[in-house]
Amino acid sequence: MKFVVERADSHSGARSGVIETSHGSSDTPLFMPVATRATVKGLTAEQIRQCGADMLLVNLFHLWLRPGEKVIKALGGTARFMGWAGPTLADSGGYQIYSLGEGTVVREEGASFRSPYDGEKVFLSPEEVVRISIDLDVDVTMVLDHLVAPLWSPEIVREAFLRTLRWARRSLDVSNGDRGLFGIVQGGLDPESRAFCASQLNDMEGNDGQRFSGFGIGGLGIGESFEDRNAILDVTLPCLDADKPRYLMGIGYPEDIISAVLRGIDMFDCVLPTRNGRNGTAFTWSGPLAIRNACHAPDESPLDPECGCAACRSCSRAYIHHLFRNKEMLGPVLITLHNVSFYQDLMRVIRDQIRSGTYREWANDRLVSFSKARGGTT
Amino acid sequence: MKFVVERADSHSGARSGVIETSHGSSDTPLFMPVATRATVKGLTAEQIRQCGADMLLVNLFHLWLRPGEKVIKALGGTARFMGWAGPTLADSGGYQIYSLGEGTVVREEGASFRSPYDGEKVFLSPEEVVRISIDLDVDVTMVLDHLVAPLWSPEIVREAFLRTLRWARRSLDVSNGDRGLFGIVQGGLDPESRAFCASQLNDMEGNDGQRFSGFGIGGLGIGESFEDRNAILDVTLPCLDADKPRYLMGIGYPEDIISAVLRGIDMFDCVLPTRNGRNGTAFTWSGPLAIRNACHAPDESPLDPECGCAACRSCSRAYIHHLFRNKEMLGPVLITLHNVSFYQDLMRVIRDQIRSGTYREWANDRLVSFSKARGGTT
Repeated sequence: MKFVVERADSHSGARSGVIETSHGSSDTPLFMPVATRATVKGLTAEQIRQCGADMLLVNLFHLWLRPGEKVIKALGGTARFMGWAGPTLADSGGYQIYSLGEGTVVREEGASFRSPYDGEKVFLSPEEVVRISIDLDVDVTMVLDHLVAPLWSPEIVREAFLRTLRWARRSLDVSNGDRGLFGIVQGGLDPESRAFCASQLNDMEGNDGQRFSGFGIGGLGIGESFEDRNAILDVTLPCLDADKPRYLMGIGYPEDIISAVLRGIDMFDCVLPTRNGRNGTAFTWSGPLAIRNACHAPDESPLDPECGCAACRSCSRAYIHHLFRNKEMLGPVLITLHNVSFYQDLMRVIRDQIRSGTYREWANDRLVSFSKARGGTT
Repeated sequence: MKFVVERADSHSGARSGVIETSHGSSDTPLFMPVATRATVKGLTAEQIRQCGADMLLVNLFHLWLRPGEKVIKALGGTARFMGWAGPTLADSGGYQIYSLGEGTVVREEGASFRSPYDGEKVFLSPEEVVRISIDLDVDVTMVLDHLVAPLWSPEIVREAFLRTLRWARRSLDVSNGDRGLFGIVQGGLDPESRAFCASQLNDMEGNDGQRFSGFGIGGLGIGESFEDRNAILDVTLPCLDADKPRYLMGIGYPEDIISAVLRGIDMFDCVLPTRNGRNGTAFTWSGPLAIRNACHAPDESPLDPECGCAACRSCSRAYIHHLFRNKEMLGPVLITLHNVSFYQDLMRVIRDQIRSGTYREWANDRLVSFSKARGGTT
């Protein structure tokens, strides 16, 4: 994996560049649609490509359990398995440590879980994550981290981020440098802890001098305020080498992304476009739109008149409203298609604005208009 | 609507031709994917087109109740409503008379139903069907018929087909000849009744001399044997003018279609490719394939090595097995995509064989191989 910053904005921390992998390249800032189980729910690989996406996020923890990394290896790796001609990034199991709750035990060696599939006890270590990622043939792997809610007690947060740092080192030790391995900055909402973690990871070297190829900022998007999150980014990013990509994990709404890019984030993923799409909420340049609302029943306009996606080219709000009203599976498919396209369009505009040196102004205007639109879902 | 027979097979009743409508044309014999509520479940209009389909079947009864024919009229008609650039045929409400059971009362004037959506009492007459079809702007409308199971008592079957004939006449009376209107041959499994109905409909004229533009053969595919159905076709088709299209409603498996084409059927529809696709059964040239079977878990071959559809081009059986095992909605989408393509490929091969004068021989070979394959689903 190779990363090049092509343009650094002189008015903000924003930068545009490109990530190159053996499966193809992707311009940054980029947004990865979420394909947890090697599928962006409801979309074919061809449709994902038509939406403009280059790089997808899969979940190592889920693919390890099903169908198993050996099955995927035998079938040519994750991208080929899912018919995807492009790069993939694997999230490890950190989020599962946080979300699976009961039955999850974190020890120094690693984490044991109850499999969400069959309840069986399973164990994952930082070293195992790196080994599994090689079988999965993903282009970027996130180290196993210990994620706790930022609002938990400082002692728990501290214990978790210190363990995350030790696990990061163990991950580096077993990596071979062939593919991307990202450390993950934790540290809750405490600026000092965040800065400490970021500096530690930035300078970290493995036994054979291995270094991280990029950094995830984790543990956010799970309850903190917009302002708290921005403050964290403001202390974290200066501690990280500017020539490596920074990935804000699991974030967010369009305004979150615009604001994080302003501070120097290069990569994003989030379930919002796909999950909200399945539930009938479309993202548009005028703000969110809830297709189930009765006002859309006779509306012949597309989800977003500014969008050129397959759904907006041929389907009215009235039609998609009809599909949702009748629980037709094409409804979720069409809004997912639109939302994934919308997020890719958003990133394309962001990159264009950075390249033309107008990003800060554009971002400030957009932050105002999106935050107004958030108030009144149509 | 215009129909032209371009080639009549000299060795069998098979013929190839073309149906022309104001929304486009379609070569026959043709198969219409089922889009009951103006959606082929899970597929975008673009995907349906890529599968090779030209003409779709929608259900007038369902669209009348939701979203309502006035909504669809205001949005430019059924095809435009669903983003489909091609002809549509509307089945009326005959099948609902049969399938909705309790709460359905057939009188001479028409049929009253309990709406399957909200339980409200609704009433449909033959004249209403024609009126609604104009608002829906479908290219071909099936008259309202009274469908009963062929194995019911001869008195009930007789009463139903005589009413169907009277309703057919009333439908003709209110039709304006602008678009296709098909009579429907009923008559249970009694060859004499079938021949009687077919002759009556064939010669039927409306008040202003209107004639049917084609004929449906209804009331089949609901329990009768392969042999009984073929016997019915053998007595029915000779009673119908050869220059009008014949549509075998709701049929069927590939071998049913091959066999019916041999007898002179031009049009088909069936839920099998879509419904079975959602349940995980793929149609292939080697017979049906149940993707949930464990043997497919490591299988890197596509659903059908002879198929060039989007699913077969980029996805292995192993991947689709994985999707079904994890209840991922892309699984049903991919097999639906494949099955709809498979049925269109089947029709293309059938048309090619008819055009090259080799249909009878090809059909007989295929009937043997498909009936063998039916025995052993993989």
